[in-house]
Order: sequence, then structure tokens, then C-alpha cells
Amino acid sequence: MSSSDIFIGETIGTAILILLGGGVCAAVTLKASKARNAGWLAIAFGWGFAVMTAVYISGPLSGAHLNPAVTVALAIKNSDWSNVPVYFAGQLLGAMIGAALVWVAYYGQFHAHLTDKEIVGGPGAQATAAKAVEAEEKGAGPVLGIFSTGPEIRNAVQNLATEIIGTVVLILAVLTQGLNDKGNGLGVLGGLITALVVVSIGLSLGGPTGYAINPARDLGPRIVHALLPLPNKGGSDWSYAWIPVVGPLVGGAIAAGIYNVAFA
Amino acid sequence: MSSSDIFIGETIGTAILILLGGGVCAAVTLKASKARNAGWLAIAFGWGFAVMTAVYISGPLSGAHLNPAVTVALAIKNSDWSNVPVYFAGQLLGAMIGAALVWVAYYGQFHAHLTDKEIVGGPGAQATAAKAVEAEEKGAGPVLGIFSTGPEIRNAVQNLATEIIGTVVLILAVLTQGLNDKGNGLGVLGGLITALVVVSIGLSLGGPTGYAINPARDLGPRIVHALLPLPNKGGSDWSYAWIPVVGPLVGGAIAAGIYNVAFA
Amino acid sequence: MSSSDIFIGETIGTAILILLGGGVCAAVTLKASKARNAGWLAIAFGWGFAVMTAVYISGPLSGAHLNPAVTVALAIKNSDWSNVPVYFAGQLLGAMIGAALVWVAYYGQFHAHLTDKEIVGGPGAQATAAKAVEAEEKGAGPVLGIFSTGPEIRNAVQNLATEIIGTVVLILAVLTQGLNDKGNGLGVLGGLITALVVVSIGLSLGGPTGYAINPARDLGPRIVHALLPLPNKGGSDWSYAWIPVVGPLVGGAIAAGIYNVAFA
Amino acid sequence: MSSSDIFIGETIGTAILILLGGGVCAAVTLKASKARNAGWLAIAFGWGFAVMTAVYISGPLSGAHLNPAVTVALAIKNSDWSNVPVYFAGQLLGAMIGAALVWVAYYGQFHAHLTDKEIVGGPGAQATAAKAVEAEEKGAGPVLGIFSTGPEIRNAVQNLATEIIGTVVLILAVLTQGLNDKGNGLGVLGGLITALVVVSIGLSLGGPTGYAINPARDLGPRIVHALLPLPNKGGSDWSYAWIPVVGPLVGGAIAAGIYNVAFA
Repeated sequence: MSSSDIFIGETIGTAILILLGGGVCAAVTLKASKARNAGWLAIAFGWGFAVMTAVYISGPLSGAHLNPAVTVALAIKNSDWSNVPVYFAGQLLGAMIGAALVWVAYYGQFHAHLTDKEIVGGPGAQATAAKAVEAEEKGAGPVLGIFSTGPEIRNAVQNLATEIIGTVVLILAVLTQGLNDKGNGLGVLGGLITALVVVSIGLSLGGPTGYAINPARDLGPRIVHALLPLPNKGGSDWSYAWIPVVGPLVGGAIAAGIYNVAFA
Repeated sequence: MSSSDIFIGETIGTAILILLGGGVCAAVTLKASKARNAGWLAIAFGWGFAVMTAVYISGPLSGAHLNPAVTVALAIKNSDWSNVPVYFAGQLLGAMIGAALVWVAYYGQFHAHLTDKEIVGGPGAQATAAKAVEAEEKGAGPVLGIFSTGPEIRNAVQNLATEIIGTVVLILAVLTQGLNDKGNGLGVLGGLITALVVVSIGLSLGGPTGYAINPARDLGPRIVHALLPLPNKGGSDWSYAWIPVVGPLVGGAIAAGIYNVAFA
Repeated sequence: MSSSDIFIGETIGTAILILLGGGVCAAVTLKASKARNAGWLAIAFGWGFAVMTAVYISGPLSGAHLNPAVTVALAIKNSDWSNVPVYFAGQLLGAMIGAALVWVAYYGQFHAHLTDKEIVGGPGAQATAAKAVEAEEKGAGPVLGIFSTGPEIRNAVQNLATEIIGTVVLILAVLTQGLNDKGNGLGVLGGLITALVVVSIGLSLGGPTGYAINPARDLGPRIVHALLPLPNKGGSDWSYAWIPVVGPLVGGAIAAGIYNVAFA
Repeated sequence: MSSSDIFIGETIGTAILILLGGGVCAAVTLKASKARNAGWLAIAFGWGFAVMTAVYISGPLSGAHLNPAVTVALAIKNSDWSNVPVYFAGQLLGAMIGAALVWVAYYGQFHAHLTDKEIVGGPGAQATAAKAVEAEEKGAGPVLGIFSTGPEIRNAVQNLATEIIGTVVLILAVLTQGLNDKGNGLGVLGGLITALVVVSIGLSLGGPTGYAINPARDLGPRIVHALLPLPNKGGSDWSYAWIPVVGPLVGGAIAAGIYNVAFA
């Protein structure tokens, strides 16, 4: 694969991942969305099929890492770091493009939601806006969750541990796919299996922190949240931003270590 | 493929697509349906598996476009427009047949729903019929949503943008399937993957407009809605009808352009 | 395949189909079930994966028809009726065994449900038991729905039409699988695709009648409902019983006709 | 496969199975989890995809039994008991590690849940804590369900029968996979099919006892529940613990017998 194919593939793929992943969060959260309150199962399937769609589209160009933790783990496994910066650049740029596209697709919904007095904490908002107010108190605006992850209970050690554990599961599943593939063609099934692994992590390990398990997935959209001209958007919670970056990278490295010791 | 196989395949396939897709909307919406209020996840999976079923049945005859946006994108990609009118004709006819079959399958439910005073806005309807009334104000009758899509917030630029974005994702996924297929047999898995891409678009990008992403899917049933002898059916919202036709066609063309530049 | 393999395969397979299919209805319906009120999506996925499980287990023995409508359609397509009686016998026996196993697995739940005064229509039951009372008025006992299907609106013409339409979709999907299979191995994927077609039919066409789409699936458990010593079980609604037998058989024949004209 | 590969594979695989399976129970149950009250469908898909993830990761090392009932059934089928103790040891150790990891990932949530007066039965808990109180009366603490299974209605004969029936379905599906595989490559699809069989059993047969269908899945986490320093955790319900061990082992043996008689 050429560097330009890698860069273009990762940019397109991560843009689609975040468009669809951030999209399902917008769909379930925002006022005047037909999918409002569709629940956690919709979130988990939405992110999983976002991964699947992005993997099949970008796979032929870049191999579909779409996640710096995958890139780091494969670099450790293969002892080859040459393309890592190109992967990282495409992933971060793609994540930012995807987050901006969510804003375009849900433009009116963002505006309706953020100017609704009941939602953003005006005088009559006590009852229905309890959750948004609670989020605000934690330093997160009422729509930040559409862009980036945040913890239900703020505890750096636990939050980091949860992100590491989730990422180890993801990366072990990615790394062992080649072993299942011997002679019987997992190949093209791999994107679907990976998607369902992500659904699994979402259902099972997403409760405490919202399962970033991907530094680009969290950092790119957080930057876009900080830049977008959204009314009443609240802060971008930068004090938490290092955890969904460091946790997944550490998890990827641990998974690569487990792979090299137990599976290689 | 002969022209008659294409026409028959697209007619049967699109009829099944709309029968099952419109069917899930009827199932979730209408009074006296066992699936009433099953929620957005049911809608998204219902449309996705509708695509899957229609693709596997019609694939051997016509290649299963089932969507003018797919036909246009493949014509651009392959620089071959010879069969386009046959595809279009089968798709529109099939969509109309499918919408009529939804009416047959839910005949009693339509009648019960549309003659229920609480639902269609009679004197005692204030509380429970808020949603239907709101739809009526927007120019859409209480069951039009079973046939055609409509926006939650009426804004031609955003509505068009949302339909274009959703269709670009769909068509990119369809066009790149051939690249994943090299030597490892995506072939028959393709219908399932495409179905799950449609579930993904529904979960993630369906909130603002109801994701037509297919001109035939929207126009054919809208014509049938205008023709059917349904009591209190309300208007067919023709002022919106051009958006789910133009948006997907533009999206298909953009996706074909991206494919030709980045993937070919 | 020998006659005894066919008989054993169909008996085991249909028993598993009805154990899991009736099981999900029991799980969602009965008092003291952890899955109570899990909703229509659980019903639709539950029946679909019931089909999948039964198909993979019985496929190697009997080819996994598990449904007289499938058997009839294949007999028409292949002009070979020699094994039809053996298939029918195994399917009906299996369906009865499966229904009896649901009763065993949910033994205490059936008793708790049917002796709960609020559920079976005692003096204090007005509010919560509205649905059960309504079912009773239609001639169906409060747990008959775990065994057999019944219409929300009793109209023989519509009910028959809905069952025919649903079965045509199912059988067209079954018959065309061989065409998708040419040289690229649908083979083993077929059970999963068929399962998701059944999920689709459940989500989209199950609303009016509960989608029997299989005479054995409805008749076998109805016989078991009539025989089981359940307290307050209500009637077995024999006046409706012919529709989910005749409808699917007609649907299977129509689908075989469509196949022979358009696809063969 | 060497004994050490088997032991390591089963330990890693069962740890991931229980991490994700217990994880979804924690996600749906605990206070301050984003997935709280996501419902039974989330539980069923969560456990199913937990199986899938664990099977693909550990398959290349140990063949991915991950369940003593699978190990016993294969030993009967193949008349080879040589590696059974190694499988059992890895499965029990893995299940304990997985349960401990759930505690780590949901550390703050466990604490918040178990020190919430409304949840653990303090003075103001009457209304909201009805379920927890009811669980307590049955001898189970309010979070035991995250670790181990328990019956809704305590009846040893029925509970044992339900576990046996569920396990027979699971093991028949596992044993017949080889028959579906002849020449058309089920191979790598098998993990996904098995996962969906587990979803099916969860949806259809999970209502009465919570479907252990795996002695290690129940016993390992129960031991961890007894050892962990959780406040107000309640008892570990040891009087029930033999049923989810004996039931699945009997079910596995019965399924192997059916296989040897009808399928071999």
C-alpha cells in the first residue's frame, strides 16, 4: 500500500466511522430526531455497524485500521513503525471530518436542542433536564456526548482501567483474526466479526466511560466540538481528554504483548 | 442479463423491499398491530433485513440494484447507461406494488387506525394524538410515514444534505464490495453486509429525514398513498417529494465520483 | 437421504424450532420470567434465531424443511412428491414435542401466570388485565399466544392474505438460495440468511396475525395447548386454526409458481 | 494442541467470555452505568457476542470449548477424555479472572450501587427497591445476578430441567457444526453461528433460570462473588449452585448421546 492510499483510506474510513458513530449518538440524543431515546442497544449496534461500514469501504485502500490503538498494536506485532505517522494523520483528520458531517446532517436538530430552555437548563427545566444539568456540573455540555466520551463516575484510575480492558479485548480480536483465517477464508468475514466485537464491548464494557477504545474517535470530535459555533454547547471537558487517548494506546500495547507471548 | 430479466428482477425485488420496509413502518405505527411502538431499532433492522431479503431474491435476475441511486452510480462507474431506463421502470413499478401490498396486509389496521377519533384528531384527541396533529400541520397525514419519508424539521438545504450524506455512505459501500471480493468470496456475503450498512445508516443518519436514500423507495409509495382510498389519510406532502428523489441521485453521483478518484 | 433420516431430522429440527420459538413467546409473556415485556424485537429475533438453530442442527439429516410450506414448494419445484408425507409427519410430531418442552421449561411460570388473579381476569384485574380480557373475548385464552398465532382483527380474507403474503416472501427466499450459491458457497451461510428473512417477516408482516407462515408451527402447538392440563387456559380458538394452515400452503404454492415462471 | 496451549487458550477465552458476559449484566443493572435498564435483548445479545469474541480469540489455541459441557460432550463423542482436566482447569480459572475484571471495570458503579440506600433496602427503599428486596428474600444479594445465575421460581426439578434443555440445544448445535462443514467451509463462520445460538437460547429459554448452560460460567464467578470485598453484597446463594453445574453437564451428555444415535 502506498502512503497516499493509506492516508486517503484512513481519512475516508475514519470519517465514515465517526459520521455513523457520532450520528447514532445524535439520533438518540437530540430533540426532533426520529430515533430519540432509542436506547443503549441502538447505540451499541450503531457504533458496531459504523465500524463494519468503515472497514469494508476503507479496507481495500489502507487495511482499515481506523484506530491508533490498532496501528500501534500492529506496529509492535510486526516490528514495523514506518507508516505509523501516516495512519495517525489520516485517522485524526478523518475523525474531525466525520464529526463535522454529523453536525451538518443534524444541523436543525442541534439548534432545536440547544435552544430549548427545558434542555439547556432554563427556569422551567428542573424536571426534564436533570440529566443535562448533571452533565453540566461534571464539566460536560449537553451535547458533548455526541462528540466525545465521558465517565459516569469521574475516577482516573478506574476510567483508565476500563478503557484499557475494553481495548485489550478489541485488539486481541483484531490480531487473532489472521489465525482463524488459515485456509478457510475468514478474510472478508473479518469486518463483520470485528463489528460485532465492538457491539459486544459497547454492551458489556461501555457503561462506565462510553467506550472510546480509540484515541482518534475521541480526540478528533472533541476538537471539533471546541471549534463549532454551537449555542450553549458547554465546555469540551479537556481535563478528561487524556484518558481516552492514553487508555486505548496502553490497551493496544498490552494486547500486542499478550499476542506475542501466547499466540505467535 | 436480458432486459426482461432485469425488469422482472427489479420489479419483484423492489416490491419485496417496499413490502417489508413499508411493512415495518405499518407494524410499528398502526393501531391493532402486535408490533406497535416497537421503536426505532425495529424500524432500522426491519428496513435492513428488507434490503437483504430483496437482494437475495432478485440478485440472480437483475443484480439487485433496487434503487435508482445505485443504478446511476454503477452507470457512472462503468460508463454504461444502456439499461438504466429498464432498471428505473422496474424499480418504480415494484415500489408501487410493494406499497399496495402493505395496504393489503394491514388492511384492517389501516381502517382501525384512520377511523380512531383519538388518532386522527377528533374532539377527545388532544393528549394522545399530539404527534399526529403535529404531522398534519406539517402537511403530512397520520399514515403517510408508512409510505414515504418526511423531515422532522423542514429545511430544504439540511434535508437535502442529510439525504446526500446518507446515500454517499450507502453507495460507497456498494461500489467497494467488488474490491473486498478479490479471491476470497465476498460474493454471497454481500447482501448481508449491504443490509447491515442500511441498518447503520438508519440508526445513525435516519433521525432528521427518515433516510429515503432511494428515490424509488420514496416516490413509488407516495404515488400509491395519493391513489389509495384511505379515509382521513391527509395529504401526500408533494412539496417535500423532490428532496428524497434529488438527494439520493446527487449522493449516488458524488459517491461514484469519489470511487473513481480514490478507489479505481 | 433415507426416509428415517428425514423423519428423525424433521422431528428434531421442528421440535427445536418450536421449543425456541414458543420459548421466546413464553419468555416475553409469562409472569416470573426474566425476559417479561422484552418487546416485539425480542419476539422477531427469537423466532429468527430459532429457525437458524433448527436449520443447522437438522440440515445434515433432512435438509431442514421444518415447514410444510417449504416441503410443498420444493415438491412443486422439483415435481417430486415422494417424501412429502414423511416430512409432514416429522414436522407435526416435532412441533408437538417442542410445544410440550416449552411447557416443561416454563412449568412454574405457566402456573404462576395462570393462577394470578390480576392476569386471568379476577375481580381486581380491570386495569392490568385489559389485554388478556380482550384476548378472552376473541376466544383465545391468556397463554394461547405462546402456542399458536391469532389475529388482532378477525377478518378471514385479510388474515389469509397476510399469511399468504408473508409465506410467499419466505419461500421465494428459500427457493432462490440455490441461484445465489453458484460457485461461491452460499451453502453454509444459507441458514443464517433464512433466519434473518424470518426476522424480517416478523418485524414487517407479523403485526396483523403473528406470522405463522408455517402450518406445523401453528397446528402442532395448538393441539398441545388443547391437551395440556393448564389451569384457566381458555379455549384453543379452533375456528381460526385453518387460516395458518391454508394460508402458508397457498403461499408456498404461489411462490413455487413465481419461481418456475420467473427464475427457473 | 499442546496441553499448555489448551490451558492458556481456555483461560484467556473463558476470561473474555465472563468479562463480556458478566459485563453486560453489570452494564444493565448497576447505578451510574450508561446502559442501565437496557433490557433483556441487550443481555441476550451481550452474552451471545461475548461467546463470539471469546471463540475467535481462543479458537486458534485451544479450540474454544470455554464450557465444561462442551468438553464433556466432545469427550463422549470422540471417546477421548485425556485433556478434559486441562480444559476444566483453564475454564474455571478463566471464569474467575473474568469475573474479577468485571469488578475492576465497574468498580465505582458497584460501590455506588451497593451503598445506595434505595437499592440495598434502607428505610426509603420500599418502592424502587422492590426487586432487590425480593432477590434478597430468595437468598441472593442485589448484585449476585451480575456474577451467577438464579431462578425466578425456586424449584429444583424445573430449574434443572430448564438448564438441561437449554444445554442440549447448545451442544447439539456445536456437535453438528462439523456436519454442515463438509466441503463448504463453515469453519470460520462457526463462531458467529454459535454466538447466535446462544442469543437464541437466552431469548427463548433464559426466562426461568438465567441460562447458565455452562458450569464454569456460573461457578467461577460465584466463587469470586464470595471472595470480593463488596459492601452489602448479600449471600452467594450456595444452595442453588449445584443446579447450573449439574444441569449443563447432564445436558451435554444427553446431547452427545442424541448425536451418537441420530447423527453419527
